[in-house]
Amino acid sequence: MTVSIVGIGLIGGSLAITLKENGFADKIIGVDISSENIDKAYRRRLIDEDMSLEDAIKASDIIVLSTPVNAMMSLLPHVLNQVDKQVVIDMGSTKEKLLDVVKEHPQRGRYVSAHPMAGTEYSGPEAAIPNLFDNKCSVICDQEDSDEDALKIALSLFESIPMSILYLDAKSHDVHTAYISHISHISSFALALTVLAKEQDETRIFDLASSGFGSTVRLAKSSPDMWVPIFKQNRDNVLDVLDEHINQLARFRSILIKKDYDTFYKLIQESNQIRKIIS
Amino acid sequence: MTVSIVGIGLIGGSLAITLKENGFADKIIGVDISSENIDKAYRRRLIDEDMSLEDAIKASDIIVLSTPVNAMMSLLPHVLNQVDKQVVIDMGSTKEKLLDVVKEHPQRGRYVSAHPMAGTEYSGPEAAIPNLFDNKCSVICDQEDSDEDALKIALSLFESIPMSILYLDAKSHDVHTAYISHISHISSFALALTVLAKEQDETRIFDLASSGFGSTVRLAKSSPDMWVPIFKQNRDNVLDVLDEHINQLARFRSILIKKDYDTFYKLIQESNQIRKIIS
Repeated sequence: MTVSIVGIGLIGGSLAITLKENGFADKIIGVDISSENIDKAYRRRLIDEDMSLEDAIKASDIIVLSTPVNAMMSLLPHVLNQVDKQVVIDMGSTKEKLLDVVKEHPQRGRYVSAHPMAGTEYSGPEAAIPNLFDNKCSVICDQEDSDEDALKIALSLFESIPMSILYLDAKSHDVHTAYISHISHISSFALALTVLAKEQDETRIFDLASSGFGSTVRLAKSSPDMWVPIFKQNRDNVLDVLDEHINQLARFRSILIKKDYDTFYKLIQESNQIRKIIS
Repeated sequence: MTVSIVGIGLIGGSLAITLKENGFADKIIGVDISSENIDKAYRRRLIDEDMSLEDAIKASDIIVLSTPVNAMMSLLPHVLNQVDKQVVIDMGSTKEKLLDVVKEHPQRGRYVSAHPMAGTEYSGPEAAIPNLFDNKCSVICDQEDSDEDALKIALSLFESIPMSILYLDAKSHDVHTAYISHISHISSFALALTVLAKEQDETRIFDLASSGFGSTVRLAKSSPDMWVPIFKQNRDNVLDVLDEHINQLARFRSILIKKDYDTFYKLIQESNQIRKIIS
């Protein structure tokens, strides 16, 4: 298979490493509007060749779109306009608005809408790592709108890694990811700002910061170029979850004010149930 | 040296492993009100012997207190009452109230108040791990109230691991740890409750939960027996930080409501500064 990766950053670059290593791709073509990214991708041996988008589409069996989600809105229909029998797969973190854009596209069937649930707080080709996707889950949305053979090829890509598959409609996907991923980022951004606002003497924070703190704020290192478009596209769901999260924090605040430590104890016990969900 | 560990859980047990491994302690005596914990400590080879508190104090050069901070309030003066030339070191996460309790104690000089900035979300002897403290930082509070030789012995313990030392007065310690550790826990508890309240279909969360989510909520697995006493003793500082954190989240909320994505972008960039602080 020849696979083009459009947007050769953390996600695209990591996928390039994996598909080349496991033999799924004979050739990886890189497409990126940044020539600096293309240079880095060559130097890190993420890609075998770089091409213009048009040439890459013609030369490929599969075109993977892994740009920020705002760019995807015009990129995806533009790519589908040029597609014949190739399969187009996007890796975006929001789905409803993107799927709306290509709902009536004559080549909609060649497109498979995916979201691999994997990432780190870093970005760019320099952030690409092997094994990022191994044994993680990839969501596939509205698969009934993809051609049978296109879906089969997309599945064979994910299974080669291997990743498990979860089918969701686009609307459910966006609600679930607001809870499972997007709110964690806002929480980390806010926590980082809280601490940065207070602690001017940064050396002291650095000395004191334990692994627990590092773990809760690490997502605050995430790129605004990637995340602002996600929050823009998933605004309504994120607002719902954010309201709920602020309410939960206000509950802890009110309990502390009332010195109601028995309820505090019960709430921690309740939150301990998360043990069943994350290992 | 003979070292007694009073409270043989995550912190006490991990310290036992380290001090035995690095040769600082010839013998580790375990003291715990739970006979189950003592059994586990023997089975995991954390301790060489177990004794009553009274016997352990007599037999030791150093007595380390690593119980939850509420128990510490009566335990510390009780231990100091029985101490002659031994050194007593506590590992508690809050300091101001504890130091007040022994301020006028005739044996105050034999006590060194420490807080090693290390831990995990697990507790009990089964959670003890090697290398937990390696190259981390230990705070020592109000060191001017410790006898010179007692401080020296405590320092030699931490340096044997090795840990770096940061001197803080008890009041500053409690303010800084509210920012650097305690608020992270409330944030994780609240996030866990937010997600658990919404997502009844837990299998689905489990499938979708990526490493970013796992990282921000992992502290929600922490024990209420350990943490409620900490929030009780550091209530006023934690309330200040919590207010500020809720304000930060409310700012993100208001920005989303106004669709002011330029400000959102700038706030993420600001929070990215946390890169300078955590690696």
